[in-house]
Amino acid sequence: MPIYVDFEPIGRRGECPNGQSLLDCARQLGVELINLCGGHGSCGRCVVQVMAGVVSDPTPEEEKFLTPARLQADYRLACRTFPLTDCKVRVPPESLSTPQRTQVESEDYHLEVAPPVRAYRVSVPPPSLEDLRGDAERFRDVLSERHGLTVSTVDVQAFQALSTHLRTQDWTVQAVVRDGQEIVAVLPPEPRPLGLAVDLGTTKIAAYLLDLLSGKTLAARGMMNPQIAYGEDVIARITYAQQSPKQAEHLRGLVVAALNRAAAEMATQVGAKATHIVEAVLVGNTAMHHLFLGLPVGPLAQAPYVPVVTSALDVKARDLGMTIAPGAYIHLLPNIAGYVGADHVAALLATDIAHTGEATLLLDIGTNTEVCLAQRGRMTSLSCASGPAFEGAHISCGMRAASGAIEHLRLVGDRVEFQTIGDGPPVGMCGSGILDALAQLRRAGIVDRRGRMRTHPRVREGNT
Amino acid sequence: MPIYVDFEPIGRRGECPNGQSLLDCARQLGVELINLCGGHGSCGRCVVQVMAGVVSDPTPEEEKFLTPARLQADYRLACRTFPLTDCKVRVPPESLSTPQRTQVESEDYHLEVAPPVRAYRVSVPPPSLEDLRGDAERFRDVLSERHGLTVSTVDVQAFQALSTHLRTQDWTVQAVVRDGQEIVAVLPPEPRPLGLAVDLGTTKIAAYLLDLLSGKTLAARGMMNPQIAYGEDVIARITYAQQSPKQAEHLRGLVVAALNRAAAEMATQVGAKATHIVEAVLVGNTAMHHLFLGLPVGPLAQAPYVPVVTSALDVKARDLGMTIAPGAYIHLLPNIAGYVGADHVAALLATDIAHTGEATLLLDIGTNTEVCLAQRGRMTSLSCASGPAFEGAHISCGMRAASGAIEHLRLVGDRVEFQTIGDGPPVGMCGSGILDALAQLRRAGIVDRRGRMRTHPRVREGNT
Repeated sequence: MPIYVDFEPIGRRGECPNGQSLLDCARQLGVELINLCGGHGSCGRCVVQVMAGVVSDPTPEEEKFLTPARLQADYRLACRTFPLTDCKVRVPPESLSTPQRTQVESEDYHLEVAPPVRAYRVSVPPPSLEDLRGDAERFRDVLSERHGLTVSTVDVQAFQALSTHLRTQDWTVQAVVRDGQEIVAVLPPEPRPLGLAVDLGTTKIAAYLLDLLSGKTLAARGMMNPQIAYGEDVIARITYAQQSPKQAEHLRGLVVAALNRAAAEMATQVGAKATHIVEAVLVGNTAMHHLFLGLPVGPLAQAPYVPVVTSALDVKARDLGMTIAPGAYIHLLPNIAGYVGADHVAALLATDIAHTGEATLLLDIGTNTEVCLAQRGRMTSLSCASGPAFEGAHISCGMRAASGAIEHLRLVGDRVEFQTIGDGPPVGMCGSGILDALAQLRRAGIVDRRGRMRTHPRVREGNT
Repeated sequence: MPIYVDFEPIGRRGECPNGQSLLDCARQLGVELINLCGGHGSCGRCVVQVMAGVVSDPTPEEEKFLTPARLQADYRLACRTFPLTDCKVRVPPESLSTPQRTQVESEDYHLEVAPPVRAYRVSVPPPSLEDLRGDAERFRDVLSERHGLTVSTVDVQAFQALSTHLRTQDWTVQAVVRDGQEIVAVLPPEPRPLGLAVDLGTTKIAAYLLDLLSGKTLAARGMMNPQIAYGEDVIARITYAQQSPKQAEHLRGLVVAALNRAAAEMATQVGAKATHIVEAVLVGNTAMHHLFLGLPVGPLAQAPYVPVVTSALDVKARDLGMTIAPGAYIHLLPNIAGYVGADHVAALLATDIAHTGEATLLLDIGTNTEVCLAQRGRMTSLSCASGPAFEGAHISCGMRAASGAIEHLRLVGDRVEFQTIGDGPPVGMCGSGILDALAQLRRAGIVDRRGRMRTHPRVREGNT
């Protein structure tokens, strides 16, 4: 019986002939694992994690390169590991020779910069025998006298920073005030306040670092959603999370860690610190939204599929484990329904579809695709699963947009011209390649308008 | 040269003759360490922690009873440990055969029960195909329709509990609402909402569990402030905390752990859970207040000795590591100055001294004593160190109120009648005993009104 191996988050699946190692199998499927020693167990670089299935026992080479804790978590060297049953194998980003491609580019979109937080430069008189007010009170009095602000709340961690910054910054600090009411952060006087915007997709995460004064995007990061190792679609994630609170928290932790890493890297890239990020906004479908907040996802999987919460939320970053400014808020846009989430609301807002005069259709294609039909201010939205088709699942040569995937394709006469990611030999076809292929087949008259293959000299009858 | 050993938090100090173990020395000073084996290193019960000074190396018996981590933290068996220099030794409560006495009794005080939180029993219609609102929205709508409440905020952890409780409690839960604005907790329908009141003293901590509906005190706990091992007075604590943020956080953690333990024990005692505590109030002197909040204490030790903050604060329990209801607030009364803190404000409020007509003096005697003179609504407060005198420090036979301390004393003719804590043989004198002794000496005319000893047949000239 043939053994099948599924490499995630790349999305390459295929047969592993008997006696082949996971590394051999990966090579055959075009998954470019790093291996410096040629697969002899002596470089320790082809680390993978076995998520499901039975494999051969760890070898002495693996015990040399992997800590007991990692071995316990089923980390293995691909070159020393032989599948004994069908397997699901996670490839950590650091084991890939070419990183997976995630799109973060977009059309520029004009909007007014009006963040909920505003930074004030505040110079406070030092205490003296004639002025024995507490640091916080002197600080608040200046905010009130000079800036006309009556803040009602000071975040406890902002308090913790206040006295230290005042005394080391010659009694001048930046107060970051949210909605004119709460001091969410106290920063040294120089750094510009930063914002973080996150699109938390089922498959991919896009994160952007913004200058909150100019509104400019300073840096962007695309990455795979690390939860993918626990299920490719939202239903699989919900099922995994429902098995125990610990598993739900594990999924949550994976995303939080990825976002913290992205925030820190982007901040470093622009010469700042993650703690200068004083406001964040995050969108995702309802399941991603709930998992990120630690909300139960059970109701999403049971009729009538209601969310725990649909309203917009403001949650302290630290309450979610985010290591930006600890008093900063993360704003979450409202959800519409169990399967039409905050990411769709973001799409509605960004396209301003409510104010287009004519009947207009909005498509947000992803692992889940959300569709909105708008006409004369009335909007009707729905969603459907589409990831499997667009991301290569259930397509015999399908794969995600990793190295070797055909991402563009053209029929030129009898020839097929194509471009692969990384320009290497083709190993499969990703979503954009599949769309290109369909469009080209349609244009060439090989596929009819109902999607059916016509008889054509180049079309062979197969067994599918 | 004689070696002196100081046993804390008991407060017993004395000479340790050469060749005596810490256990021998403790016995001689009346510190009642548990030892079941008679000091032969075979019961492992006389565990102490060496905080300062040099002692003999650990023995094989100690390696048997103490983990490497505990040995690393200078935990030792008193019977196997011989001091080589002057030492300071901490006696953990579990190593004492009779617990130290801390007073939590007080006169009853009538007040109106008006906590900032109120619990509402809310029955929510289950979702259906005709009612696809999110759980939170259906819940909020009922709160608004039935109870006229428009809550603006729902704590994120209350959200996390909401859906689960609704589905397991037949769609009826208790919403705990603070100031009519924020849902701080969602509880099952039965448990009564509880409150926690804490007096965080430099030496002792008193904690009370209250029924927030009736205002009744359900349970009380007195305990030593575990920070005492790092300094007996506030100046010593501030010095220790200032040496590094890690040390400050360590002091904070000690108190938080003690309070969490007390809260859990009291809740268990009344058949409840610590997570049913939905509001807390804490007072302490300014240094204890700042250390508990993780605020810098440096400014308190430098002229002009200003606090970081004097205003009253409401801080989320979870932000301080308190394991009561995670969305609950801890209310901290305002501080007045660097050395007149929130505990004094509590004393002013409890005695209502502002409204006494005549000139009135309020004394709050503790490790620090705060004094307030009130006349015609004008109040003048100050503080002074008094712990050393009242708690036995710098008194040759002084000690804290532990087993064997003379706590009451009377002169009857030529005889001295006294009572010790635990009714055992006397080993020293604690604060109340010292006060009794002074009062009796004054009454007998042996001490004059200026505090001077008169010549008296029973008074001997000594060398002090």
